Amino acid sequence: MTVRVGILGATGAVGQRLIQLLDPHPDFEIAALTASEASAGSSYREAAKWRIDAPIPEDVADITVGATEPDAVPDDVSLIFSSLPSGVGAEVEPDFCEAGYVVSSNSSNGRMDEDVPLIIPEVNADHVGLLEVQRDERGWDGALLKNPNCSTITMVPPLAALDRAFDLTDVRVSTLQAVSGAGYSGVTSMEIIDNAIPHIGGEEQKMETESRKLLGDFDGAEVRLNDADVAASCNRIPTLDGHLENVWADTAEDVTAAEAADAMADVSGVDLPSSPERLIRVFEEPDRPQPRLDRNVDGGMGVAVGGFRETTDGVQFNCLAHNTMRGAAGASVLNGELLAQRGYL
Amino acid sequence: MTVRVGILGATGAVGQRLIQLLDPHPDFEIAALTASEASAGSSYREAAKWRIDAPIPEDVADITVGATEPDAVPDDVSLIFSSLPSGVGAEVEPDFCEAGYVVSSNSSNGRMDEDVPLIIPEVNADHVGLLEVQRDERGWDGALLKNPNCSTITMVPPLAALDRAFDLTDVRVSTLQAVSGAGYSGVTSMEIIDNAIPHIGGEEQKMETESRKLLGDFDGAEVRLNDADVAASCNRIPTLDGHLENVWADTAEDVTAAEAADAMADVSGVDLPSSPERLIRVFEEPDRPQPRLDRNVDGGMGVAVGGFRETTDGVQFNCLAHNTMRGAAGASVLNGELLAQRGYL
Amino acid sequence: MTVRVGILGATGAVGQRLIQLLDPHPDFEIAALTASEASAGSSYREAAKWRIDAPIPEDVADITVGATEPDAVPDDVSLIFSSLPSGVGAEVEPDFCEAGYVVSSNSSNGRMDEDVPLIIPEVNADHVGLLEVQRDERGWDGALLKNPNCSTITMVPPLAALDRAFDLTDVRVSTLQAVSGAGYSGVTSMEIIDNAIPHIGGEEQKMETESRKLLGDFDGAEVRLNDADVAASCNRIPTLDGHLENVWADTAEDVTAAEAADAMADVSGVDLPSSPERLIRVFEEPDRPQPRLDRNVDGGMGVAVGGFRETTDGVQFNCLAHNTMRGAAGASVLNGELLAQRGYL
Amino acid sequence: MTVRVGILGATGAVGQRLIQLLDPHPDFEIAALTASEASAGSSYREAAKWRIDAPIPEDVADITVGATEPDAVPDDVSLIFSSLPSGVGAEVEPDFCEAGYVVSSNSSNGRMDEDVPLIIPEVNADHVGLLEVQRDERGWDGALLKNPNCSTITMVPPLAALDRAFDLTDVRVSTLQAVSGAGYSGVTSMEIIDNAIPHIGGEEQKMETESRKLLGDFDGAEVRLNDADVAASCNRIPTLDGHLENVWADTAEDVTAAEAADAMADVSGVDLPSSPERLIRVFEEPDRPQPRLDRNVDGGMGVAVGGFRETTDGVQFNCLAHNTMRGAAGASVLNGELLAQRGYL
Repeated sequence: MTVRVGILGATGAVGQRLIQLLDPHPDFEIAALTASEASAGSSYREAAKWRIDAPIPEDVADITVGATEPDAVPDDVSLIFSSLPSGVGAEVEPDFCEAGYVVSSNSSNGRMDEDVPLIIPEVNADHVGLLEVQRDERGWDGALLKNPNCSTITMVPPLAALDRAFDLTDVRVSTLQAVSGAGYSGVTSMEIIDNAIPHIGGEEQKMETESRKLLGDFDGAEVRLNDADVAASCNRIPTLDGHLENVWADTAEDVTAAEAADAMADVSGVDLPSSPERLIRVFEEPDRPQPRLDRNVDGGMGVAVGGFRETTDGVQFNCLAHNTMRGAAGASVLNGELLAQRGYL
Repeated sequence: MTVRVGILGATGAVGQRLIQLLDPHPDFEIAALTASEASAGSSYREAAKWRIDAPIPEDVADITVGATEPDAVPDDVSLIFSSLPSGVGAEVEPDFCEAGYVVSSNSSNGRMDEDVPLIIPEVNADHVGLLEVQRDERGWDGALLKNPNCSTITMVPPLAALDRAFDLTDVRVSTLQAVSGAGYSGVTSMEIIDNAIPHIGGEEQKMETESRKLLGDFDGAEVRLNDADVAASCNRIPTLDGHLENVWADTAEDVTAAEAADAMADVSGVDLPSSPERLIRVFEEPDRPQPRLDRNVDGGMGVAVGGFRETTDGVQFNCLAHNTMRGAAGASVLNGELLAQRGYL
Repeated sequence: MTVRVGILGATGAVGQRLIQLLDPHPDFEIAALTASEASAGSSYREAAKWRIDAPIPEDVADITVGATEPDAVPDDVSLIFSSLPSGVGAEVEPDFCEAGYVVSSNSSNGRMDEDVPLIIPEVNADHVGLLEVQRDERGWDGALLKNPNCSTITMVPPLAALDRAFDLTDVRVSTLQAVSGAGYSGVTSMEIIDNAIPHIGGEEQKMETESRKLLGDFDGAEVRLNDADVAASCNRIPTLDGHLENVWADTAEDVTAAEAADAMADVSGVDLPSSPERLIRVFEEPDRPQPRLDRNVDGGMGVAVGGFRETTDGVQFNCLAHNTMRGAAGASVLNGELLAQRGYL
Repeated sequence: MTVRVGILGATGAVGQRLIQLLDPHPDFEIAALTASEASAGSSYREAAKWRIDAPIPEDVADITVGATEPDAVPDDVSLIFSSLPSGVGAEVEPDFCEAGYVVSSNSSNGRMDEDVPLIIPEVNADHVGLLEVQRDERGWDGALLKNPNCSTITMVPPLAALDRAFDLTDVRVSTLQAVSGAGYSGVTSMEIIDNAIPHIGGEEQKMETESRKLLGDFDGAEVRLNDADVAASCNRIPTLDGHLENVWADTAEDVTAAEAADAMADVSGVDLPSSPERLIRVFEEPDRPQPRLDRNVDGGMGVAVGGFRETTDGVQFNCLAHNTMRGAAGASVLNGELLAQRGYL
């Protein structure tokens, strides 16, 4: 049975990727698109400055864009994907949940709220149970579920594999992030050509907190944060797509480079349409993964790792994921699939 | 009194920078240029594919390039700057030293040899005394002194300031390195446009070993390596000049972000023509230093730092230096000035 | 019936694209790969520095690379694709033709030879008849057919449409060419980051002469060059794939911008597997086509045009094609399909 | 005697270059800076997102930014430099002129107005006489003088040399323009990395009309446009600074490549502080000038040319100038110097 879905913030960079993923989706059908007031009333073709290197799906192009409010979305829509600026998200997402919509959100607002599940299905699908707590507390018919920040998503699958087998204690991570992570107008060309920017406002904190929630334990009532010490340093570089990260992971148990790689290679996907067969692709060449060559691994939904070396207290390695696919739009779609599978719609 | 100097490997990227620095130098005069057999006999103008955005100095352009061997260099040359591929350097640098030349070398061969001083004058000028040991052991009239790798040079000045004040224990460093660090043909455009490469062969090891030698103690007979644990992860990104580095420095003593910044800001230059008044420039804006904006700080001879944050065991910060100036050609010139000042010529 | 084919110069940039196109091809089967002496004897996986953002086809990866000479190719191979440096091509392509192989070549040698057909099937497929003349004159059992230079291929389809309808008299063309046009190591990163190079050796001449041959008439015995006056200015810019060109086309007949666009939109593909349904895609947005967004139009085998404006003597417009697909590997494959269809194998 | 000057639009890309040029200027002293309402009242240091790779001049950093209106500028300021968005310029520049200020403007509004002189001092300084007509007609105590668009400035000096000697008839020009030409936020990184944009709104028209005014004759009452036919095609590419242009210039008189180059090499600068000794630098290497290597020729105030080839009706060549120096801020400063020299202040 096809689920009719809506997209909040459909004209932005992640919104466009959501359309690219949802248009051919086997279970979902795009029934509503919203954007800012300025765009409401226009066709999507007019409203969106389409920047993906494949044409706008014809049937989507003609949809009339609505305002970002529950009234603008048809009642038969049961699942909402949200990719809004966090300020807007904080304001309107609760309205949708109150109005009975189930929202799979990529917006950064509320990710660390105690009753909001933050989920990567292959890592911590069981946290979805937190929605019961949420509905109890907030009195919603709908529900709000979040995927993490794109740079957090890239490192957590490999870290989860290590934590399970060798018990993580300390993580140091340095990121080389693509410009698309900031949205279409987020980074000007004059800022980044022949340059790199060693700070992304708020991003370091997101990586340090969201990762501990994702790696935490849910006991039926609350999520206890993982007690690993995580420190991040985030850099913007002149690449279009694909976040590359250098990670040092210290562990309580001894681990060799080969054991670390094997633990990651062993992680399978989950039984959802957008989950790849194997979650993590291990490269043996020391200079891989690379953003341009490897960001599309498994249709942009895989995580690529390589460059394993033993350190005094654990291992260091590199990881890469497509920041607007696995790191944003694809993450939301996957969470939408989880919500459908678990009967929340 | 003007010292007549020669340049080995004068047509390469670092060779061109050496010419740019030595031509207007107050104490040195370029008297000999060497390159590979193919170029020997040509004028420098013909032999070099000049790539600096200022013209070739006229008097240098007309010098006839010689072969890279002692006989091709006039006897009245007393100081040699060497920037050769390491294989060539390993072969010919000893010949020059045996023939009585004092060599300030940027080539990577022999940097960790026990009787070869590896020096950043503002950090460990006292290691120059190792040349006595070298002359004793090798029976040379000349001498061989090295500057470290460009990515090592970038982080060691700030680390030395921390070590002195707070006792370094562990260092994790992730680099974002410019393409000029690999020489003119080292990185093809197809490899790096819209991309990043998370490994530079041998570079990680250089950073891990050379830094401990630079931060080590010289007791008059040998250099005892600093016992900090150093782990590096090196990345090439699409920038032209300037290596940016994210550093986590753990210390035995407690240190705040402000104390770390102050310790670095306090380091003055040394009394040599190419040393800046202050070695390290501290930026307060969290998104600085950036390669394009800050690589030319203090004429390319400064080290820029910023982004200080306290961590559980120390501090994290970012540092930047111009890789072919402070990181290579300028480093060699500065070492040449030290050799002249200390009477080794 | 499947044709067994060989690829000369299989490890280069165009060679890799040939493999990407030929591996899934309905009519062709890769049976032999050749490269330089240094690679002969290795598996393709070892010999090629694979740079395409999709994995090497598994069955191709294990083929042992041979030397580039007729003896190294099995006898049951009947069609050879050649993408060699022109000096090597000039030397070995005749050997293959003499040995009975039919060669569809992308190498630039011999393109303007009077008895060598230079073909874009949608433009001048009838020139293939020149092969009779070639076989007569050279006494070959095999045959040699060429596709033009990548920047020529980009502009000739739209120019042919204009010439047919409005009679071309003068062409001025300025190119913005991607780095992949020069092969993997053809343009270094230091040459092109934050830069453009306003000259590509020999390229201007190729565009000026090859275009007139492609637009010329074949009377059964020889090709009479088109008498339009063509002047080209070629630039390399920092893009990976896709040659963009600004064209001024003066015509003998009056032409409006709309008529020019319509004439191009009307051109259909030909009945060969790699030819798109419509040869030329007309964009109405004045800022399209753009390399990154539009180079993959019709699987990289279309030509995109836009920006039509009337001038005093004709029209100006922009055109774009994927230089290693429609402009090189795809062009050769298409010519191979033509050779098979016309019974030359 | 030092002239006190003001800068309208001081925080933008051109405004920052104006400060860089005017701070050390021998005859001018910065006395007032204006920006949008949002910035008025802040110090320049706070208001400007400084992006030049040299620090903000200290004395300028502390100036309080005013609103962009005559009352916000001290009375002892006699010369105003204006670099405003054209809509704002059209509104406020006349107010300044009415209030008695002499305005040297880089804003595009009004450049083709019949009583507004459009000037490159080395090309058509005599057009300054049009100010008498302007004052008569508008009743202003002040005056308004414009410099042309950055891409027009790049080609007009070489075209003027050709026109004088060989009588221009037709010009075709294709540009490769740097992102700084669009201001700091004008081109996003996602638009331009690995891409080129073959259209810049309004730019083609500016080049086609402004060039004919600059090359026109002033008879004491009006400027008669040059009757050459000019057609332009404008492209944005991923370079930071420096507009490169491919030009075809048809002439009434016969001209060889060497004669064309000589005519350009012969043009001297004028007797103003910012004018270089020779206006045009001729390169013999066919692949020069290049943006990164040659944009700073003569301190960014020269025009570089090369790549001369004869065509059927004239010559083709390439030209390059620094778009925010010679092409904008430097052009305005030079015009300010002309106004001072000719007694208009």
